[in-house]
Amino acid sequence: MKMSKIFHHSVQIYYEDTDHSGVVYHPNFLKYFERAREHVIDSDLLASLWKEQGLGFAVYKANLIFQDGVEFAEICDIRTSFKLDGKYKTLWRQEVWLDGAVKPAVYADIEMVCMDKQKKLQPIPDEIMALVLDAAS
Amino acid sequence: MKMSKIFHHSVQIYYEDTDHSGVVYHPNFLKYFERAREHVIDSDLLASLWKEQGLGFAVYKANLIFQDGVEFAEICDIRTSFKLDGKYKTLWRQEVWLDGAVKPAVYADIEMVCMDKQKKLQPIPDEIMALVLDAAS
Amino acid sequence: MKMSKIFHHSVQIYYEDTDHSGVVYHPNFLKYFERAREHVIDSDLLASLWKEQGLGFAVYKANLIFQDGVEFAEICDIRTSFKLDGKYKTLWRQEVWLDGAVKPAVYADIEMVCMDKQKKLQPIPDEIMALVLDAAS
Amino acid sequence: MKMSKIFHHSVQIYYEDTDHSGVVYHPNFLKYFERAREHVIDSDLLASLWKEQGLGFAVYKANLIFQDGVEFAEICDIRTSFKLDGKYKTLWRQEVWLDGAVKPAVYADIEMVCMDKQKKLQPIPDEIMALVLDAAS
Repeated sequence: MKMSKIFHHSVQIYYEDTDHSGVVYHPNFLKYFERAREHVIDSDLLASLWKEQGLGFAVYKANLIFQDGVEFAEICDIRTSFKLDGKYKTLWRQEVWLDGAVKPAVYADIEMVCMDKQKKLQPIPDEIMALVLDAAS
Repeated sequence: MKMSKIFHHSVQIYYEDTDHSGVVYHPNFLKYFERAREHVIDSDLLASLWKEQGLGFAVYKANLIFQDGVEFAEICDIRTSFKLDGKYKTLWRQEVWLDGAVKPAVYADIEMVCMDKQKKLQPIPDEIMALVLDAAS
Repeated sequence: MKMSKIFHHSVQIYYEDTDHSGVVYHPNFLKYFERAREHVIDSDLLASLWKEQGLGFAVYKANLIFQDGVEFAEICDIRTSFKLDGKYKTLWRQEVWLDGAVKPAVYADIEMVCMDKQKKLQPIPDEIMALVLDAAS
Repeated sequence: MKMSKIFHHSVQIYYEDTDHSGVVYHPNFLKYFERAREHVIDSDLLASLWKEQGLGFAVYKANLIFQDGVEFAEICDIRTSFKLDGKYKTLWRQEVWLDGAVKPAVYADIEMVCMDKQKKLQPIPDEIMALVLDAAS
């Protein structure tokens, strides 16, 4: 299955994002990737899956490369694409781009799985599956 | 001196914002207030004041009331107004509003001071003063 | 009712705690106060109240004064005392002390209330009440 | 070069660590790994390298596997070992263990590089090198 189109999500860097070395504290990029995924999957849909079916998505694997620091007040373009990998897994490619850059400041390959409230693996629900197939077409 | 007009800044609640009780973790509201202030004062101006003059703003006092929980996927309208209080201090009123609410979920009175990199109190720079007077007029 | 004895909790400042201005990002002090309260009240007790009775504690009011910056690698002594205020409320005095300081870097007065999972106000449970009365005696 | 001995660092899970799904928010494990590394390398040494020589360490690569959720009030044992890889790089193996578990809840392979304040790669300073060689012997 091929990757979806690339989705864009913009993140502005605030005080809260930086550390005393002067750049974004590295775990925060995982937050931006998660925000960006919620704008792909739609957080209202995620919220209703959680409340009505007790289903949520969890990161199973994350491979990150940090190539450049990002500073206070910069605006990042988070670029996200994804595909299905079987009934249980989605694979995501996510990148942090600064204006005018020739390579991403940070990039990651992330595997997500679907789980119920007892943290048991569940097949990806039809609502999400439809969305994934649509984005990949 | 009277308060400025009310500025609006929108914050969407992500996983990162919530805790296991199911609502936004209370210190995070201080983050949203700070984000909102940066959109009033302009974070590029703040970044250049920091880099060129070594001046930054710090919270000296914050009085917060938490009236309602805010849940995952909700969109908050952060309402901000402010005024000058002498040469050294700005006073901010900031509120978190949910759609259709009759009172703010959270509100705060916050005092900001201007400091140099040695953490010494400094008068508010002219660039900011002009902006404040403009917003209050 | 008089304040309890002072409880001490130690917090080391890591990269995650600081921002690009070089000191602790101000909302983080609310995190340290919350950690310190959990060591007074006992987090196992809090966890079982939550799981078995659906009861948790929420901050209703927080008044904070930030007097001094705290830097990377510093060790803070969080000093906490508290008292009961009626059947529904506990009042907390919490301070951040650095080694050799003559005044707290940060201090706060915090009001906590007890709530069920529907966010309804509930009287403070007997287990907590016993603990409070014991600490205050 | 063989891996160092295993260093242990204990992390208690507070409200701030969890999200509304009821377990630790996944980026936070990168925080715990960083805390643990600072207790291996010694944060006073890190602070003086930063202030006196302008040198800091940055994560270049992080490969994470999330196998189990971690809940509020649990105590994690962060297990850390590391080795040198040339003059510029250190490789770290870090794991999150819960009491009585047969496999780590989370584990990671992390590459750290040494950089100056201009974010230029620098050879690992002698003070750190001595510490690394000592731990690995």
